Amino acid sequence: MRVIKIGLLGLGTVGASVIRILQKNKVAIEKKCGCSFEVIIACARDLEKARDCSLSGIILTTDPLEIVHHPEVEVVVELIGGTTIALGVLIEAIKNSKHVVTANKAVIALHGNELIETAKRNDVFLGFEAAIAGSIPVVKTLRESLAGNSIRKIVGIVNGTCNFMLSGMSESGYSFETILKEAQTLGYAEADPSFDVDGIDAGHKLAILASLAFGGAIQFEKVSIDGIREILVDDLVYANALGYKVKHLALAIKSTSGIELRVHPTLIPTGHILANIDGVLNAVLIDAEETGPLLLSGAGAGGDATASSVISDLVSLAAKPSQKQNIQRAEFQAKSDVSSEVNVLPIENIYSAYYLRIQALDKPGVLAEISQNLASSEVSIEAIRQQESHGDDGSVPIVIITGKITESAIANACKHIGNSDNVCGDIVRYRVESP
Amino acid sequence: MRVIKIGLLGLGTVGASVIRILQKNKVAIEKKCGCSFEVIIACARDLEKARDCSLSGIILTTDPLEIVHHPEVEVVVELIGGTTIALGVLIEAIKNSKHVVTANKAVIALHGNELIETAKRNDVFLGFEAAIAGSIPVVKTLRESLAGNSIRKIVGIVNGTCNFMLSGMSESGYSFETILKEAQTLGYAEADPSFDVDGIDAGHKLAILASLAFGGAIQFEKVSIDGIREILVDDLVYANALGYKVKHLALAIKSTSGIELRVHPTLIPTGHILANIDGVLNAVLIDAEETGPLLLSGAGAGGDATASSVISDLVSLAAKPSQKQNIQRAEFQAKSDVSSEVNVLPIENIYSAYYLRIQALDKPGVLAEISQNLASSEVSIEAIRQQESHGDDGSVPIVIITGKITESAIANACKHIGNSDNVCGDIVRYRVESP
Repeated sequence: MRVIKIGLLGLGTVGASVIRILQKNKVAIEKKCGCSFEVIIACARDLEKARDCSLSGIILTTDPLEIVHHPEVEVVVELIGGTTIALGVLIEAIKNSKHVVTANKAVIALHGNELIETAKRNDVFLGFEAAIAGSIPVVKTLRESLAGNSIRKIVGIVNGTCNFMLSGMSESGYSFETILKEAQTLGYAEADPSFDVDGIDAGHKLAILASLAFGGAIQFEKVSIDGIREILVDDLVYANALGYKVKHLALAIKSTSGIELRVHPTLIPTGHILANIDGVLNAVLIDAEETGPLLLSGAGAGGDATASSVISDLVSLAAKPSQKQNIQRAEFQAKSDVSSEVNVLPIENIYSAYYLRIQALDKPGVLAEISQNLASSEVSIEAIRQQESHGDDGSVPIVIITGKITESAIANACKHIGNSDNVCGDIVRYRVESP
Repeated sequence: MRVIKIGLLGLGTVGASVIRILQKNKVAIEKKCGCSFEVIIACARDLEKARDCSLSGIILTTDPLEIVHHPEVEVVVELIGGTTIALGVLIEAIKNSKHVVTANKAVIALHGNELIETAKRNDVFLGFEAAIAGSIPVVKTLRESLAGNSIRKIVGIVNGTCNFMLSGMSESGYSFETILKEAQTLGYAEADPSFDVDGIDAGHKLAILASLAFGGAIQFEKVSIDGIREILVDDLVYANALGYKVKHLALAIKSTSGIELRVHPTLIPTGHILANIDGVLNAVLIDAEETGPLLLSGAGAGGDATASSVISDLVSLAAKPSQKQNIQRAEFQAKSDVSSEVNVLPIENIYSAYYLRIQALDKPGVLAEISQNLASSEVSIEAIRQQESHGDDGSVPIVIITGKITESAIANACKHIGNSDNVCGDIVRYRVESP
């Protein structure tokens, strides 16, 4: 039986899970794949640390390059994370004709085009199923299962931290800060949470998904990103009363003129298929012309769930010829064309419905004035509600759901409304998605 | 560029969709796959019939064997359905070293073991993504993405007709017969609906899914199957009042002693992840030790949706060496081991909670008598409700949710209860699933 020898970079939670699962399910995997997977060498900064797996028979090193240059290693699994060390190591591995599998969304989002081109030139496989949405097989689904389809839209809940926090705020009524502490205690948020709560991580994943779905280069720098820091429990309550839930969504939408790439808190109807994806769950909704909406949902993080996707990429390698077999591997050469760029539409021109929260004085005529100002900016109103809670200054929140309008038009309208003496403070606005 | 030449058996809705999608998305598919797909010959009973696709450049024949023997055909796509003609044609194609792709669940469920073994011996690919749950990539997910995992349980809504009918009965309050007529008018049910409403089709799909998930031969004959003919709108209403929805589920569950394979109407809590999969949607929930529950949901039928899965199998072929390249194809030889059988547990020994509907006389002491009879059969009661609607004989329905108990024990208990003079007619029972 063919043995695929693996060099493992990083022995954290996911690395330990990869080793443990490959050992535990060895017989079943061999039966299913017709080959065997063996981690022969692994690298970690601290070799003395206790690991949640058996390392017997595995060469240990602190030098990533030892793995990359090891003559017997056929595939390098990169679980270091970040871009500082990982990029150089991945490039070096590929240039050494090693197949590479990574769970590192940052390195793929920021340097994926270079990595894909280098992998093509060196005729090796570059797998990153584990980089997006943990256990969910969304990369394979887009790359292979839906390869024949015209994809119109991807909507994802791809950051477990944000989803856990919004679900938690909604259920408990606790503030962003309180829920953040809970998330940190539970290990769902980092000590510095900005990467997650400011939407960068979701932006990374969206850029990769869009390239898989629509072709062309990964364009992370063109993703419009808003995080969840500013969201108040009040907004979740008001939205709910109007029939919506607030989710942090990553959206890639194709139109005739280009694609929209945006990550932001979003109101979705409570009957929306993504509305009940709560807690640390992830979900990706793929809408293709031929199939209609296809939903994939599951664990978005965790050692074993992520390791499952790493192993999924290894299994893909089982179907590939080994390095010794010198045949033309068409699938590696053509699968990702990242040389061209699909036009990304500027966020200012994108149409959306909006939720507005306007803090205004509680006196006759104010609601009429706001409605009038919106009308003069050609913003239609789907729903408007004055809330009961009074601020210290006697002002009340007025909540509005608008019709569809461009980002630049709603920004102008808000500026216009904000100029009134009857309106206090900034106007809060979030986008609203239809089903 | 490599051209994969296809022979198409069957020019119905799905066949026309396959041709149309391959033509419409030709450029994008070539870019993604690095090869081109071309239907060069197609077969239909009636060549004069109008088709919803262009047949220009395609040789047409009424003889399936002409396709199977065509020297240029590399892959045969079988969309005839049924087992009479399809089996012989598929075997003949495989023996002629053609790869085969089929959307035919009956032929795979009933003759899959033979087909898989023959495909292995002849070193060709046998694809059947389209045979289960339309557009949902559940075969590839089980075969490849989750190949490293220990799967514990599969729960599927895999028959669109049943799901449409139960959703419709629940929403409208119309009877089975009325909704069946609606489903037939809409094209969601056949003139003879027994294959769907009696659960045979779901049983076929479950047998295939279980073989993919747990290994071993496809064992359709061991699936315990109940359909939805007996379900009353009353049952849906009573279940709903107790916090449940009724779904027609296909379940494959692994335990230390073997696997359960069963298809039946099932009460699931309204908060269950499958509770809102309504209408003709399909869904498959896969629960693995490593990942926890993974949900795949989407269109379960329709020409384009099914064609999408047929093309997904064609795309898998793009990554395979062509027939001219004589290398060892380990993945074909080992992927499905159907030579052994996993032990299927007899339905009598399976534990489940139950919903019981007992028609009883409306007089003091009857409810106590029934409770007492259940207790003496060691059946615990989770909930019990006497309904208000009186029958012509003055009897009332009593609805009970039991604790977990074996099928044989509940059958005995029901027999015992039914012997009472206070109980009229048969006792209706359905299984209840926890989340």
